[in-house]
Order: sequence, then C-alpha cells, then structure tokens
Amino acid sequence: MALVVMKFGGSSVADADKMKHAANKIIAKKKSGDKVVVVVSAPGDTTDDLLEMADKITSNPPAREMDMLLATGEMISISLLAMAIDAVGEKVISLTGPQAGISADADHTRARIKKINPKKIKQYLAKNNIVIVAGFQALNPKGDITTLGRGGSDLTAVALAASLEADFCEIYSDVEGVFTADPRVVKDARKIDYLSYDEMLEMAGSGAQVLQARSVEVAKKFGVVIHSRSSFSQNEGTYITSEEKIGRQKMEALLVSGVTFDKNQVKFTIIDLPDTPGVAAKIFGRLAKIGVNVDMIIQSAAVDKKNDISFTVSKSDMKKTHIELDKIASELKALNVICDEHVAKVSVVGIGMRSNAGVAARMFDILSKKGINIEMISTSEIKISCIVDEADMAKAVEELHKGFKLSKKS
Amino acid sequence: MALVVMKFGGSSVADADKMKHAANKIIAKKKSGDKVVVVVSAPGDTTDDLLEMADKITSNPPAREMDMLLATGEMISISLLAMAIDAVGEKVISLTGPQAGISADADHTRARIKKINPKKIKQYLAKNNIVIVAGFQALNPKGDITTLGRGGSDLTAVALAASLEADFCEIYSDVEGVFTADPRVVKDARKIDYLSYDEMLEMAGSGAQVLQARSVEVAKKFGVVIHSRSSFSQNEGTYITSEEKIGRQKMEALLVSGVTFDKNQVKFTIIDLPDTPGVAAKIFGRLAKIGVNVDMIIQSAAVDKKNDISFTVSKSDMKKTHIELDKIASELKALNVICDEHVAKVSVVGIGMRSNAGVAARMFDILSKKGINIEMISTSEIKISCIVDEADMAKAVEELHKGFKLSKKS
Repeated sequence: MALVVMKFGGSSVADADKMKHAANKIIAKKKSGDKVVVVVSAPGDTTDDLLEMADKITSNPPAREMDMLLATGEMISISLLAMAIDAVGEKVISLTGPQAGISADADHTRARIKKINPKKIKQYLAKNNIVIVAGFQALNPKGDITTLGRGGSDLTAVALAASLEADFCEIYSDVEGVFTADPRVVKDARKIDYLSYDEMLEMAGSGAQVLQARSVEVAKKFGVVIHSRSSFSQNEGTYITSEEKIGRQKMEALLVSGVTFDKNQVKFTIIDLPDTPGVAAKIFGRLAKIGVNVDMIIQSAAVDKKNDISFTVSKSDMKKTHIELDKIASELKALNVICDEHVAKVSVVGIGMRSNAGVAARMFDILSKKGINIEMISTSEIKISCIVDEADMAKAVEELHKGFKLSKKS
Repeated sequence: MALVVMKFGGSSVADADKMKHAANKIIAKKKSGDKVVVVVSAPGDTTDDLLEMADKITSNPPAREMDMLLATGEMISISLLAMAIDAVGEKVISLTGPQAGISADADHTRARIKKINPKKIKQYLAKNNIVIVAGFQALNPKGDITTLGRGGSDLTAVALAASLEADFCEIYSDVEGVFTADPRVVKDARKIDYLSYDEMLEMAGSGAQVLQARSVEVAKKFGVVIHSRSSFSQNEGTYITSEEKIGRQKMEALLVSGVTFDKNQVKFTIIDLPDTPGVAAKIFGRLAKIGVNVDMIIQSAAVDKKNDISFTVSKSDMKKTHIELDKIASELKALNVICDEHVAKVSVVGIGMRSNAGVAARMFDILSKKGINIEMISTSEIKISCIVDEADMAKAVEELHKGFKLSKKS
C-alpha cells in the first residue's frame, strides 16, 4: 500500500464533467489500495474572474485582501471535488490550506511555506478518507490567509508529499509529461521517461513550462518522486527523481535529455564602459536593488580601457531595466545603451554532458551549419544556452533536437 | 463616539458600483466619529451560482462540503469591500467568521452561534480599523466551517452587536424599513418608526420578510437596538427595540402596528375523528416526529362522539404531511382527510391590543363587512390571525390597513 499525493491543475477541474473525471481517477487510485491525498487548484478561469472583480474595484488592492479573495477559488474546487467523490460513495473530506496545517511566512501573494503539521491529514487518512487539500494557500503567523504565488499548487503538493513521506507526488495536467522539446515546435518530440531533479530544474529555468522550479527544488531537497502525467490518459508520464533512483544505466545512455527555448528574453548592451574595477558590481547591484533578475552576462575584452557588457533580463522587467540603465550609463559616462527585444534563448539540458566532452562544440556546429548566429553563450554543468535571433529560434530547436538524436528512443 | 454594526445584504454588494456605494456609506459613518464593524452577505446571485455548481456535481451533497463551498461567497464580499474602502484611504481589515471568533455548534447548513470571542475585532478597532466580517459563517468544534442557514448574516450582525455591546445594529437592505403592510399590496402603507421586539417577532412569524425571527430573538435577549434601513437613501428606517426604550407615549398611541399576510399556508382537515383522549396528541406527535411545524389548530365540538380537527402547515411540508395524515386517519378510523392549498393567513400585530379590548371584534367586523369568510382564527397577546380564502387575501389586507387607520400618522 502506497501513499500518493495527486495534484490536479485548474484545467482538470474546469467544469462539472472534468471534476467528475478527476474524481474517478482519484477513486480508482484509492480502490487500487493506496492512501490518497489530493491537491487541487482553482477551477479553470476562476482566478482570472476574481482578479477581474478586484480590478473593477481598485487598481491597487491590498495584498492581504487579494489573498482572502483568491483563496476562495481553491475552496470552490475542494468542496465540489469532495462532493463528486462522495456521490460515488467514497469517504472524503476537504481541507483548506490552513486547515491542512500548512503554515507560511507573512508575505502576501507570494508566501513561502514554513512548516506543515500533517496531523489532521493523517487522522483523516487513518479513518480511510480521501483527503482533498486546497493548493496555493496557507496560514501566516498573524492568522491571515496567504497565497504562494505562481505554481503554488504544485508547491503545496510536493511539500505535502515531503511532509507525509509519500511514495509519489503525481502532478496531473493536460500534457503527457516532460518532452524532449515542446511538441508544438518539434513534431517528433518524445516524452521523457526519467529526469533528474537537476535536469528538470535546468529545463524549467530555460523555458520548459510543465513544472515550476520552486516545487522541483523542494522535491530535490526532500527526495520526493514527482510523476508528471496527463489527466486525460492512463499512460505513464515523466518521473522526476534523483540520479541514484533513475539508475546509472538509463542515465548514461543519453548525452542530452531535452531542448528548451525561452522567448521571454531581452538583451541589453552598454557600450564603452570604463574598464575599472567595480563597474560590473555597480550595474548588477543597482539592478538587483530594483528587483531585476539578470540571466546571462557577457563582458567583452577591454580595448583602450573601455569595454562592453551585455546581459539578458525577462521581458516583464524590460522597462524598469532600461530606465535604470540609462541613469547608470550616464553616471559611468558610457557611450550608450542598446536594447534588443528580438532575441530568444535556446538550451540543451542533460546530465550526460557531465561525463561526455564536446557537447557544446556539437551544439555550436549544428547551429552554424544552418547559418544561425549565436549572440551569447552560457554554460552550467548540465546545460548549454545560446541567445539567438528570435526569428531563428524554432529552426534552432528543431535542428538541435534532430542533431542530438532525441526523436528516436536510444 | 458610538460603536455601530452595519449589515449589508447581497443586493447591496451585488456589483462593483454597489460595493463602492456601500463603502462610501461605511466611510461616512466612520468619519462621523463612530467605530464601525461591518457584516456582509455574499454578493447578489453568488450563493445561487454556487448552489448550481454543486447541483451539477450531485443532487445530494454532504452538508460539510456545502458549507465549505457556500462560505466562499461571503469571503468574496468581505475582501472586495475591504479593497473598496482601502482605495479611498481608510484603514480596513476583512475577517472570515472563524477569524472573527464566531463559534457555532456542529450542525452544518443551519448551525447555531454558540459563542463569540471578539478579541481580534476589538484589537483591530483599537487600531482605528473598519472591521469587515463575513456573515452567515462560523467555526464548529471540529475546526470546520459551518453556515447559519437562512437569514444567517442578520444573525451574525446582531450577535456581534451583542458581543461588542454596540450602540446600534444597522441592517441595510433595499427597503426603507418595516411597513404597516407590504407596499406592493397596500399602496399607502407607511414606514413604521419604532417597533418592539415582540411586535417584530409576530410580524416576522406571520409573513413580514424584512428581518428573520432568529435574529430578532437574539436582539431581544441581549437588548440590541436594530435599525432596519435602506442602502439607497439617507432616511431613518425602523428602530426595533424594547418597549421601555420606545417609550410609553409612542407605544400606546397605536392599537395595531401592522398588517401582515402569508400565502405559504395549507389547511388540512381530518373528518370524523373518534372523540377520545389522546387523539390530538397522537396526530401532532406524529407530525412533529417527521419535522412538520404546525401553525394554527382548530378542533370542532364533538357530535356523536366524533369531531373534526383542522390545522395549517407551510406549503413546503404539504406532501409529507398528507402522506402521514392518510396513515393516521386510517389507523384512527377517521372518515377522510381534506387538503386545501388555496388559503392565506392575514394578521394584525400590535402591542396596543394588550391594553385595548375589542381589536379582534373590530378585525372580524371589517372582514365580514366586505364579505370575507374567516375559516380559522388564532390569537396571541399582541397578534390576531385569520385564515381566509387566498383570493380574498389582498382585499383583506387592504381593508384591515384602512380600518385600523394605518395609512395616516396617528
């Protein structure tokens, strides 16, 4: 008998039929002999509807009241899903995040889980209940409801799985799992059977949208096995776990596990900065202060005691970055600031590259043979990313997918 | 400086504009120097929408999950209303029923308030906040959310006013107060300035729909002054308070305070029952057992050791009453059971009749002069009710209103 946490996203509980479908999947799991805890997001467009209601009242709502409002979305899901399960005759109970013992820090709209006291969940499991927990929400030290921000329901599921020492944390969505590349871009992209936490983190950080990096980090920290799979099929999806559990055999066969892309990038270049110590620290310190996350950075070699610095930020930070950079450039007497919105990041990810040299060279070779210019490069132990022209992105992803032989099972 | 509880019903917070309108009324009250606690119902049709969602899932939802679902309606109201008040720059905080310290018994969908711990509300009031509390909901001993049933938000408001020793409990709705008769039936019906708790209870119990009897009972028990008034005007409404506070002068001037009607009545008659002891006890004991509330009862004088019993029940209980009565009649060898759906109850209410004889006689005279047949009569100290043919109801109400001179201020 296993203990399984099943997490259903908003699209899996968007209406009564989908709700009943999810209920059937949950009941089948229970009937197979497992103990089941379910985490669920707000149904379909509910969160957007609530945001729209708030927007009609004020453009600047207090974060605490926003959390009070948004938390209702998951309460609707958990109660309706419990009704659907009860209607089939299974014992079931719904719990809000606070009722489930999930405590967070005081931050509103993006709180961090501090502690889980799973006593109540365990009591209901012991009485043979399916326990349904509202994702995305928690109780803060003041006794207020907080929400966990984007991807918060995944985080709730993984954190509960860790706290309950569950055997699996199944994340259900409308895709079959994690793919070697986005199937909308690469037609013969293949579902990946096993991924290590680090690979998943690199993929999430470089554009793959199946799982949020935050929940993968928590899964890695506590050794929670994530199974990302589809609500609408019986097929196995992608298991995300430690390299040890995957096994060396499966691991070493693959040089590269997947190709990802990210169009949400803007490239800034500051021309003719003085080549003196502390310049880079000043620029990136100032950007950090206004909350801008910098991704890739390149500094050119100095010529005549001047050099250029290029870096990328996400598109949502473009405006404030530009304003701040103009100030910094004038303070440092740099020549000017160039902003390029039409770039994209293309990455290959795989733990195989740790023990295999030449992956970077092969990547550059594949791109250059197709005449794709590489504007910036960054590497980690298991990822290589290149900034290319946005117009070349799809071709780059397809060619890398083909070049690293990801289409066929190896 | 007074402490005021203001309660807004669903129609007063049905959309963003109404929400802002209510916010302005609340802020004006605060700015006049009062401390303000607000109780609010779910916006407009929200509760119906939630019920419909549940109905698409199952026709027989567990009561606990229904309460979890319905409680979201008031959470939407309190958070949006708090946003509207914050947007104008006033300090404000929203609290769910459980957060506000409202405890109830374990019953779901119709829980009774057991205790209020107003510590948190008082803390926020002391810090100069407007405190907004979700009506209709409470925490039960198991830590579950319960709801208080029909009229539950009025009950929350009155109970909070009692617990906080508020100076007034203002109940805002879309009517100006309590009227001498329903203005839709009697055109020159007049708003009543003062009503005693007992009069309001009798009027609520005999068809007036402004306030639920439950909240008036609590107000009477704890001496809470209710002010029933309109959200859409500045006019004073109806004060409901003790006879002492109203003052003898205002009280004795009026013989009858109002005329009410109730179409939700069905008359049953059992013909030719044996005239032996215990027959009535058997009939009404059996009906009580299946949860039927009997209103008026008449037993005819015995003829040939047989008599008839007539009584009224509410229309929603008609079917199960009929089934049970058929069984009882056959057990008791009565002749048969007659059911008449086309009846209505017309009542006159007023504390003035306590010290003035002849009100009943005058009522019967007014009705008989217009050829209206009285089928049953019941009286209390401050109310006289008659069952008439449904077709005569409107005429009866109008004639009584005229006959007791309720149109003009006396």
